[in-house]
Amino acid sequence: MDFDGFFAEQLQTVRDEGRYRVFTEIERKRGAFPHATRYVNDGTQNVTVWCSNDYLGMGQHPVVLEAMHKTLDQCGAGAGGTRNISGTNHQHVLLEQELADLHGKEAALLFTSGYVSNWAGLGTLASKIPGCVVFSDALNHASMIEGIRHSRAEYKIWKHNDPEDLDRHLSAFPAGVPKLVAFESVYSMDGDIAPIAEILDVCEKHGAMTYIDEVHAVGLYGERGGGIAEREGLMDRITVIEGTLGKAFGVMGGYIAASADLVDFVRTFASGFIFSTALPPAVAAGACASIKHLKVSSKEREQQRDRVATVRRKLDMLGIPHLPNPSHIIPVMVGDAHKCKMISDWLMDNHGIYVQPINYPTVPVGTERLRLTPSPVHNDGDIDRLINALSDIWSQCELARGSVAA
Amino acid sequence: MDFDGFFAEQLQTVRDEGRYRVFTEIERKRGAFPHATRYVNDGTQNVTVWCSNDYLGMGQHPVVLEAMHKTLDQCGAGAGGTRNISGTNHQHVLLEQELADLHGKEAALLFTSGYVSNWAGLGTLASKIPGCVVFSDALNHASMIEGIRHSRAEYKIWKHNDPEDLDRHLSAFPAGVPKLVAFESVYSMDGDIAPIAEILDVCEKHGAMTYIDEVHAVGLYGERGGGIAEREGLMDRITVIEGTLGKAFGVMGGYIAASADLVDFVRTFASGFIFSTALPPAVAAGACASIKHLKVSSKEREQQRDRVATVRRKLDMLGIPHLPNPSHIIPVMVGDAHKCKMISDWLMDNHGIYVQPINYPTVPVGTERLRLTPSPVHNDGDIDRLINALSDIWSQCELARGSVAA
Ligand SMILES: Cc1ncc(COP(=O)(O)O)c(C=O)c1O
Ligand SMILES: Cc1ncc(COP(=O)(O)O)c(C=O)c1O
Repeated sequence: MDFDGFFAEQLQTVRDEGRYRVFTEIERKRGAFPHATRYVNDGTQNVTVWCSNDYLGMGQHPVVLEAMHKTLDQCGAGAGGTRNISGTNHQHVLLEQELADLHGKEAALLFTSGYVSNWAGLGTLASKIPGCVVFSDALNHASMIEGIRHSRAEYKIWKHNDPEDLDRHLSAFPAGVPKLVAFESVYSMDGDIAPIAEILDVCEKHGAMTYIDEVHAVGLYGERGGGIAEREGLMDRITVIEGTLGKAFGVMGGYIAASADLVDFVRTFASGFIFSTALPPAVAAGACASIKHLKVSSKEREQQRDRVATVRRKLDMLGIPHLPNPSHIIPVMVGDAHKCKMISDWLMDNHGIYVQPINYPTVPVGTERLRLTPSPVHNDGDIDRLINALSDIWSQCELARGSVAA
Repeated sequence: MDFDGFFAEQLQTVRDEGRYRVFTEIERKRGAFPHATRYVNDGTQNVTVWCSNDYLGMGQHPVVLEAMHKTLDQCGAGAGGTRNISGTNHQHVLLEQELADLHGKEAALLFTSGYVSNWAGLGTLASKIPGCVVFSDALNHASMIEGIRHSRAEYKIWKHNDPEDLDRHLSAFPAGVPKLVAFESVYSMDGDIAPIAEILDVCEKHGAMTYIDEVHAVGLYGERGGGIAEREGLMDRITVIEGTLGKAFGVMGGYIAASADLVDFVRTFASGFIFSTALPPAVAAGACASIKHLKVSSKEREQQRDRVATVRRKLDMLGIPHLPNPSHIIPVMVGDAHKCKMISDWLMDNHGIYVQPINYPTVPVGTERLRLTPSPVHNDGDIDRLINALSDIWSQCELARGSVAA
């Protein structure tokens, strides 16, 4: 077989469908976020990033950087091993305590990423609990889907954010069957939020375990940044809370928080946890500092909310269509892969505004979008430049507008 | 179902079998490696680490730490997104170029860990090449096995390091069937090395793609640290070379290096690559500095070889049984989980010597061992203390000795 020929041909198909991804190469500038340098055609360009998941700018926060510098100085770079073989550093233990406390759980377990925490966490629970059936929200993230698939457990997909449909699916199985319900709080592409209390009511009725991905909510919601479940006083009703250290917390890594026995069980049986080098101590210390800070400081969350509201208001004034939702994510809908990429290129080339086009497979075909994530550090000037540029391109290309707000 | 009851019961079984893992909590000390602080029972203890996979001490090397500090200062902490959505930082691009050059390949692709690179790399190739059959060495690492399982491709397991058995398996399939052969260079638990040239001869005869895991060899072997395949002049005959940035390179992350089209294919289709926050720029910069350094400096490799030889010689003088092998890994064989743990505890408690007992599932039952990894920075005093302590416990417990070397 001509392997390279096959790869080339598959890539051509992706190109033909307008979904070949060219990565934008940037260099973040400490203290200047959301401003960054873009590397392009042997030159550079100053850009304003409008699509980062460093939602609160914590990746540039002095407390985070100080913790990382200090730990590099004290401990060096890498962890030195897997968690079991010389890789458990003091910083991991402190971070796991911090995470357990954040979610009001007995224990927490760190993974190298949020992706791995979902894949290994769900995969281990679903494969090791005999006869377990998984009930997965239709819009769950790839990492959860792959974990469920990997487990080989039977699974059912319930209608997105629909507790009644979940109830129907759960009802189809006898009470004795172990059930695991997996869903997210904030869905990152539409920015909608799950009706967690209603979902929990249904799960409790059926004695089902619950697993929530709060990746796009931790640090951002709740009095102490514990996520939507904290804000709604529901953390103690959820079996497993999963999160990332790479988005609002600004660093890298993932985790689950749950009962001591559940966490110990996953720690003992999850291949993706056991057989991989632990996070660098400096990364763990940076994440820990970020969590600690966001437990007591609401300033970043408040400023972000203000920035999000401002962008929404200004988009409405121009009739630029965006998906309404109760979160911090503003999806400006385009609905066509080529057009979406063209707008994104135009914003970059003419205004130094970086908004990645979001195409299939990240969102369904026909719902292509620009996904804006205003942060506390986007100032009024940044917002005005964005809005004016969007207005220009909407006029130039005669893109559809909604009704214009007063 | 009583989930927590189930978890507790399963954990009890693991305890009863003597394979419940208690992680040793340490704090690495920059510049003092292999010396570290152990946290235990609310106190601390000075220990010498003899089981780290920071094989060359690069995790403490000034060039690595300087690169990390500098990048933290310039760019901040996290990458800010997935590679496609604002997460491709200049440092990732530079590191991928460095890795492609290291292995003499057209391109390289970074992952968050070596585990993810194997799981996603093999998983994507095996699932996306129609009708692909995978031929996996019997002792392949968990991350490769999980990637192959995840792909749902048909697979055959060939006898460890046995090209003839591989040939038999490959011969059982028609020439037109796409074949992917996966193996490692240095096997980390026995320290044996694959007969790569013979394996490649067989693969070429059958037109099979080859995928080699050089996780325990990169940085350590070859003129520029390209691994065993570099040392043996075989890199250009291998389709995919996979490695980690978390062991000899001392930081964190994983990668594959291959043809431009293959790398682009995996980049485009691998869920575990696409849907996960990129490595922090400072981590990428640290790894890049480490690779660059080890491309031109052989001092660390030479010193390590000297230390490994010294430990082996001294073990032989006392008749302490260790598995002979041509690598840097010294497995001191114990053959019993409880005994292995007991020796390890005794070394720690009485001598501050940290060697993690290696038990099932990392190695087969009955082959439990202490796995020593001498580094360039273990000095003569460290070695003498280790050897004397081992001799003591071997006498006290009347453990089997081999013939004593002259
Ligand atoms: C809902 C969701 N879960 C998990 C992840 C993975 O987390 P991480 O980026 O830490 O791997 C992501 C995105 O990256 C996500 O959007
Ligand atoms: C052979 C082998 N491959 C892959 C890995 C995973 O690499 P990483 O630690 O970077 O996840 C390991 C160990 O951790 C390994 O021993």
